Amino acid sequence: MTGNESLSGLYTDRYELAMALAYWRSGRAEEPAVFDYFFRRAPFGGGYAVFAGLGTLVEALERFRFGDTELAFLREDGFPREFLDDLRGFAFRGSVWAPPEGEVVFADEPVLTVAGGLLETQIIETLVLNVLNFQTLVATKASRCRHAAGKRVLSEFGLRRAQGTGGLWASRAAFVGGCDNTSNLAAARAYGLEAAGTMAHSFIQSYDSELEAFRVFARVHGSSTVLLLDTYDTLRSGLPNALAVAREMEARGEKLKGVRLDSGDLAYLSRKVRAALDEAGLETVGILASNQVDEHVIRSLKEQGARIDGFGIGTSLATGAPDGALDGVYKLAETGGKPRLKASETVAKATLPGRKTVYRMEDGDGMAMADVVCHADEPVPDRMVHPFEPRMRLEFTGWRARPLRDEVMRDGRPTGHVPSAAEAAERARAALGRIPPEHLRFENPHTYKVGVSVQLRDLRDTLLAEKRKEIDS
Amino acid sequence: MTGNESLSGLYTDRYELAMALAYWRSGRAEEPAVFDYFFRRAPFGGGYAVFAGLGTLVEALERFRFGDTELAFLREDGFPREFLDDLRGFAFRGSVWAPPEGEVVFADEPVLTVAGGLLETQIIETLVLNVLNFQTLVATKASRCRHAAGKRVLSEFGLRRAQGTGGLWASRAAFVGGCDNTSNLAAARAYGLEAAGTMAHSFIQSYDSELEAFRVFARVHGSSTVLLLDTYDTLRSGLPNALAVAREMEARGEKLKGVRLDSGDLAYLSRKVRAALDEAGLETVGILASNQVDEHVIRSLKEQGARIDGFGIGTSLATGAPDGALDGVYKLAETGGKPRLKASETVAKATLPGRKTVYRMEDGDGMAMADVVCHADEPVPDRMVHPFEPRMRLEFTGWRARPLRDEVMRDGRPTGHVPSAAEAAERARAALGRIPPEHLRFENPHTYKVGVSVQLRDLRDTLLAEKRKEIDS
Repeated sequence: MTGNESLSGLYTDRYELAMALAYWRSGRAEEPAVFDYFFRRAPFGGGYAVFAGLGTLVEALERFRFGDTELAFLREDGFPREFLDDLRGFAFRGSVWAPPEGEVVFADEPVLTVAGGLLETQIIETLVLNVLNFQTLVATKASRCRHAAGKRVLSEFGLRRAQGTGGLWASRAAFVGGCDNTSNLAAARAYGLEAAGTMAHSFIQSYDSELEAFRVFARVHGSSTVLLLDTYDTLRSGLPNALAVAREMEARGEKLKGVRLDSGDLAYLSRKVRAALDEAGLETVGILASNQVDEHVIRSLKEQGARIDGFGIGTSLATGAPDGALDGVYKLAETGGKPRLKASETVAKATLPGRKTVYRMEDGDGMAMADVVCHADEPVPDRMVHPFEPRMRLEFTGWRARPLRDEVMRDGRPTGHVPSAAEAAERARAALGRIPPEHLRFENPHTYKVGVSVQLRDLRDTLLAEKRKEIDS
Repeated sequence: MTGNESLSGLYTDRYELAMALAYWRSGRAEEPAVFDYFFRRAPFGGGYAVFAGLGTLVEALERFRFGDTELAFLREDGFPREFLDDLRGFAFRGSVWAPPEGEVVFADEPVLTVAGGLLETQIIETLVLNVLNFQTLVATKASRCRHAAGKRVLSEFGLRRAQGTGGLWASRAAFVGGCDNTSNLAAARAYGLEAAGTMAHSFIQSYDSELEAFRVFARVHGSSTVLLLDTYDTLRSGLPNALAVAREMEARGEKLKGVRLDSGDLAYLSRKVRAALDEAGLETVGILASNQVDEHVIRSLKEQGARIDGFGIGTSLATGAPDGALDGVYKLAETGGKPRLKASETVAKATLPGRKTVYRMEDGDGMAMADVVCHADEPVPDRMVHPFEPRMRLEFTGWRARPLRDEVMRDGRPTGHVPSAAEAAERARAALGRIPPEHLRFENPHTYKVGVSVQLRDLRDTLLAEKRKEIDS
């Protein structure tokens, strides 16, 4: 149970196979091709994204096969038998370059590059987009919640409002981006995450009195008990009952772990509850808050002096609200050794042709200063230009160039250890620490500089001019 | 591959099992319980929802089991062995009442009711919410797109931006709500949907010229060819090349099926393209439009006189944007034969206690006039009252009462045929036709009346008063 059970070669859009058939008929299936994955706008009005989903994608590429069930369906759908006979032996045998999972990435740079035969690199498009767009969205959301929450505990509670089984990857990505644990047991098992949770209103309602419900729960769960206070009335019922049970627990050598606030004015209630707990000598009892929490609510609660030790975040995190999707795309950069581009009315929307690499320029402290996209085979550039604002350029002086991406798959196999969610989370924490804070803030973040080498810009401009001439003629 | 492969007893929040353990320890696991699923606000600022996901839920409940893998994980997570030994034999054996999938439902009525043992009805909560919230959201979105599109073709193209494997259920629900087909092959196979698609920019870019790309594709796909026009320039390149290929196809007895517009001013471009096609005698070539389409864009395009025969809808449909989630909840209504409620500061947010049923009151033409929630064992009421506005009441005269829900599972087994996505779609079409149009409009929809019987209101008020007295004492 990893959310990957549903994957096969049919986890794609029909047009990928329609194009594949045309390539195959023209003898172009094995023609070398290069595709880039990138996004044009960082999510949530922010200035960055946390790259996530790579571990899932590597595993998913292995599952991208066509067995009897898949082939029978495609036959019914009208694909010719000889083509399907060939697909039976299909396995992705290409190469993939990507940053380590958890790395911070920016708009308009090739985050991930796939090279291989034209057919194989084309038909995995939908899979690549589906995995990376969603997990990067949620990891970025989680990183923003973490940014607001500081060292407070962050629990992801979103499965009930998640978009179907997408909830599994949501929990994984939330952890990569900065959550401490999840309520989602399937995800906890699949990805080695800590599972967490408290109790629901229904538990309390099922007893004749709230006090009795608290007692039973505390008897069973001992010092891991967190009591939900708002089933009837947080301050007049939940709180006094929790205090009573906490005292009973102390009498038998146990400690109430925490209480949860799930409605009402969380700032006000948390101060009242904290005061009552402290007065009763229950300083170690934590206060967890849930109910429509996101990064903005967390920040606002902090500003109001709320006394909250941890947050349970559901819908907004598991669905990456309010964006709901990252607009990542997968664009052809090269076929048959020729650089290719998608033109457009504006230069800004033209794609960058050819096989490329990305360097992160870092200052003496290892802080990220700028990213430069250049040809895979040119030397590390000593300056960069803006992709479409001719007057904007930047000389690199005293900065170190670090390749942003590694070859993570070669001949369809991982080149090394595929990092776990925990390793990706560790990487995200470190990576975020190397981004100057002005790019991380929520309001009008300073735009991180992503530029291109002069050589790459010139190639793009030449190809664009050629295309335009062709259209004009 | 149905999106259900990832499901097991771990597809739940940890607190469900923490509560289950407490019930089990107290000997309450088998105590009779009743839970209601309902939502408090229709999605998208609209006045209704299309109930979807029931077929998936019925299948998923069968998969809600604990095998060795699941039990080993729970053991590691600290659950006691004896409890897990009991879970090994777990299967849902309760009853479920629900409307037929595709039925139109409204806020504040028990859409689905589960009855069974306290443990089993509790631990399936997350699953019920995850399935119904998401599929109902997307089916409702699709129904709005259909409302705007009239008889035009609607294709769901969302997998690349869908929330992970949630994209499978998204395609299913989009079909239930009114889409004609999907690009998602996995969903098409799993749910018996029509698969559809055209070509991507990458296909065209991979050839030296657009004309050559069009020619190759048309040779391979014949009369099912739809050409994408905007890779270089819709009117100056894509259109003339498509016209040339259409003529070549005619010469060999084939017909170009359509062209796709994917950027620019869709209204303007569609008129230009239509005129050029018609002038070339290509009246049968359809125009498909994609790129950030939703119900509002469709309506606006119609108003502008766009000549579009079909829409490809991706992100907004597959993610149910802008809402991203339906706020459905699953609340305890009865345990041990006693009606239960969740109190709250406001009567409006108190839940309706006890085992209930819902009647839809229909006029002589079968049009829906009002829904009334009452006790499962009271006779069909002849009037209803507003749940918390004492002066609002409605007498039923000349209307027929139709039970909104049937028992769809009994003793954990479906009571009859589980409808397919196609049957649910058929039901949705019929059901939407029986809702007065003022409830279906996008802006300020007239609120459909959902009331309660006097007996139910009185019970709720009595229990609420008791709870408040208890808190005050």
